[in-house]
Formats: sequence, C-alpha cells, structure tokens
Amino acid sequence: MALLSPAFILVRPQMAENIGAAARGMLNFGLTDLRLVAPRDRWPSKKAITMAAKALDGPVKVKVFKTLAEAAADLNILYATTARHRDLEKSVLVPEQAARDAQARMKKKQKPGFVFGPERTGLENDEIALCQKLITIPVNPEFPSLNLAQAVLLIAYEINHQGHQAHQGKLNKNLGALGVLGGKKTTPAPQAKQEELMARLINELDKNQFFKSKNLKPTMTRNIRAMLIRAEWTDQEIRTFHGIISTLTDKKKAAPSDL
Amino acid sequence: MALLSPAFILVRPQMAENIGAAARGMLNFGLTDLRLVAPRDRWPSKKAITMAAKALDGPVKVKVFKTLAEAAADLNILYATTARHRDLEKSVLVPEQAARDAQARMKKKQKPGFVFGPERTGLENDEIALCQKLITIPVNPEFPSLNLAQAVLLIAYEINHQGHQAHQGKLNKNLGALGVLGGKKTTPAPQAKQEELMARLINELDKNQFFKSKNLKPTMTRNIRAMLIRAEWTDQEIRTFHGIISTLTDKKKAAPSDL
Repeated sequence: MALLSPAFILVRPQMAENIGAAARGMLNFGLTDLRLVAPRDRWPSKKAITMAAKALDGPVKVKVFKTLAEAAADLNILYATTARHRDLEKSVLVPEQAARDAQARMKKKQKPGFVFGPERTGLENDEIALCQKLITIPVNPEFPSLNLAQAVLLIAYEINHQGHQAHQGKLNKNLGALGVLGGKKTTPAPQAKQEELMARLINELDKNQFFKSKNLKPTMTRNIRAMLIRAEWTDQEIRTFHGIISTLTDKKKAAPSDL
Repeated sequence: MALLSPAFILVRPQMAENIGAAARGMLNFGLTDLRLVAPRDRWPSKKAITMAAKALDGPVKVKVFKTLAEAAADLNILYATTARHRDLEKSVLVPEQAARDAQARMKKKQKPGFVFGPERTGLENDEIALCQKLITIPVNPEFPSLNLAQAVLLIAYEINHQGHQAHQGKLNKNLGALGVLGGKKTTPAPQAKQEELMARLINELDKNQFFKSKNLKPTMTRNIRAMLIRAEWTDQEIRTFHGIISTLTDKKKAAPSDL
C-alpha cells in the first residue's frame, strides 16, 4: 500500500453515513488522511463510525476544519471533483490522469488533496477556485447519479492503482505521453501561502477600483485566481510576486530581500 | 457511452438492495445487461427497484437464471471476480487489464461476461471453473471489505474507461488531444503578446528600483518570465494582467475595457 496518503477533503458533507462510507472506501485502498470542512452533522458521529466498518476506529485519521482554505493549508496541490463543466481556465482530468499526477508528486514529497463537494450541490465556485485542477469522473450523461462515497471509492481506487503502476516502472513512460510533469524539480508552495498572495493582490486591486462593479467582482476574482494558481508557484516565486506587487504599488518597505 | 454492453452476472446475491445498487453502478457507466443466478430474495423486488434509483425502470435489463452455466450460455468469455487467490491455472487480472481485454473482444463482436459471487462467500470453485479469467481488485490486504455493489461499480468504471481509451476521439467528442475531458478550449496567446506583457512588467519594475543591482537583473528577469509564462495565458488573460499592472501602478487610462 501507499506509504504516503494524499488528503481527501469532504466539504460540507450532509450525511454522517456518507462520511463513514467514504472513510471505508479510502481505507479499502490504503488511504488514511480524511478532512472534513464544516460537516452538517455533529462530529464524531456514531452513524459514521458504524458505516465505516472499523475504518474510523483508528486507521483513518479525521480532522475537522471551518473552511476549505484551512483544511488545505499544508497541501501542495488540490484536485476538485466536479460533475459539471466549469467555465474556468483549469485542466480537467479523468481520475486516472489525476491519480497518476498525484502519485508522481508524492514521489517528490508533495502532498496532494482531493476535494469533494456536498452531496446534492457539489462544490461552490469559490471553493473550486482554490483548486489547481479539476477531476470529472466520466459517467453516463443520461444517468450520472454517483454518490459521494462512490466518487471517493473510485478516486481512491485509481490512486492506489496508479501507485502500483508506478512501482512497476510504468510511470515515466506514461507521463511522457501526458506531459504532466515538468523537467524541473519544483514543489508548489502550500495553499496557505498561495491564498495569502491572492488575498493581498485582490485587496490591492479592490482598493484601486479594479473591479468596475460589485456584480462582476466574484467572477473576475475567480478568473484572476485561476490564471495565477495554474502556474503552481514555489515559495520563492510567491515571494517574488509579493515583491512585484510591493514595487508596483510603491511599498518599498515590503519588497522582498531575498530575490 | 458503450454501444455494446457486456453482461454482469450476480451469482446467488443475498440482498435485493445490492442488486439495485449494482444496477445503478452499471448504468452510471452505460452498462445495461444484468443477469441474476438464483437470487435469494424474490424477483422482481421493490427493494432493489428503490435502491436502483430508476436504473431498473427500463434502462438496465434483468434476466434470472437457475445456474451460472445457463446465464452465461451466449457469452464468449467469462471473467470471475474473486478476492482470494485461487489455486487454479488461470490468468489473474487487475480490473484495468480485464476491462481492456473485454473491450478488445467487444470490438471483434465477442460478448464478455463479468461474474460476481454472493456477498459473504464469493463464488464456488465449480463456478470459477466455468470462467476463463479471474479478476482481483487490488485492495488493502488489511481492510479488504469491498461490497458487491462497490465491486460492480469499479469494474463498470474500468470497462467504460478502457472503452474511452480504446475509441479515443470517436466515442467521446469531449476528449481532447491529451484525453482531457471537457474544460474550456484554451489557446495560449501568441508569443508576441506574451513578450509585450513581459517587457511592460519588467520596465515598470525597473523604473521602481525592483532590481537591486545590474548584475542581478538578467537572472531575476528570467525567473519572473519563467514563473509567468508557465501558466500559458490566453489573450484574455494577458489583457487581464495588463489591467492588473495598470491598476497597481495607478494608470487608470490604460486599464482594459473588456474584462
């Protein structure tokens, strides 16, 4: 089984049973890092523990957070699972591609997170905007009724499966075709640092009347975030961009000293 | 979705709910030929129909048989799903391999069948003996508790997935050059526009003493360029970034009008 476990983040899950079933599906494929963002039902939950068939009795560790940003603070890359096509400039991967990409990153000590939305509504646009990549499970368009635990199960299965493939020496060959990995050995900055930068930039833009109307601001913000986080900046690059903002806004005192 | 459907055969299923959930999992991935061998509960079953969320209201066709041999009479090849390693001289495949093999056969007008045993006991040796190949889903050996409907879901997912792989570009119009699903069709801006933006940014930074020494400027410029062009911005995104620079440097007149 995998030595490292990517994090699975359930955002605002409605049913405790689904959390239990998700934990069980994760552990079936050796994954143990489960994070909950604002679950509707009280946590810990007896219903979840029963449904988990011992997966929640120790092997799967659960942490609860208030927001997706907090839950993802230490993660290097986020994959959002989404059924609908979104109008954002992000890669949309099938589970196999996402799992392969995540396995390659884990090999380089990066920690990925897979983000799942609430049962009925899915992730909100602002939550998806926090994620670098999208995953869509290619289901029958006339019968797309996958539930939360099933989506978790399929992604966990692919992560484990692609991990085995990688160990069989197939990884590099397959990656070559997809071109997922760059040549340079880089680790994207943790989400918390990416968020801090985005918040600062948006704030500066807002102060200077960049957003022409309140109606347009959410969409424009998401688009800016999408075009910037796509580059997967490192810690150093994040500092550089802080320096660029400081310079352009003429705040010399905040300019970085270690470029 | 697949034009042909392989048969899924549930042998002596115990719980009608599991039959319903299996039908649903099949239809999620476009499969519609379900066969039951000696189900314990009476068939048809209200519990199964409820659990199937409309999959059993027409799309998935169900036939009931007394023995596996009868259920499989018209099939060209049988894959038995089994958790344990069997002492039989048969190929043991992971789901991906089995699905790929089945897709190749369907292309040649062969009809494959996937055989699933009863919930607790699995298939009997005599039943396995009828099958040409075995499939084992590689689960965590310390927590192998996949249920019947989950096993059906994973196999159905792989059959559909390998079908897409096999017919890439024909079956699913959404599959792009990388096999990436959906998303927006993006074209990076021409190099000239990228260069124009870089030149403007570097010039603004230079005017405001961003580069602390002449020696460092070439390296810093290269690093900034690398971190920005990596995102492969579109024409629209290039305009957005021009707008960001204009706003931060407070040159409102140059702000783009078409964000």
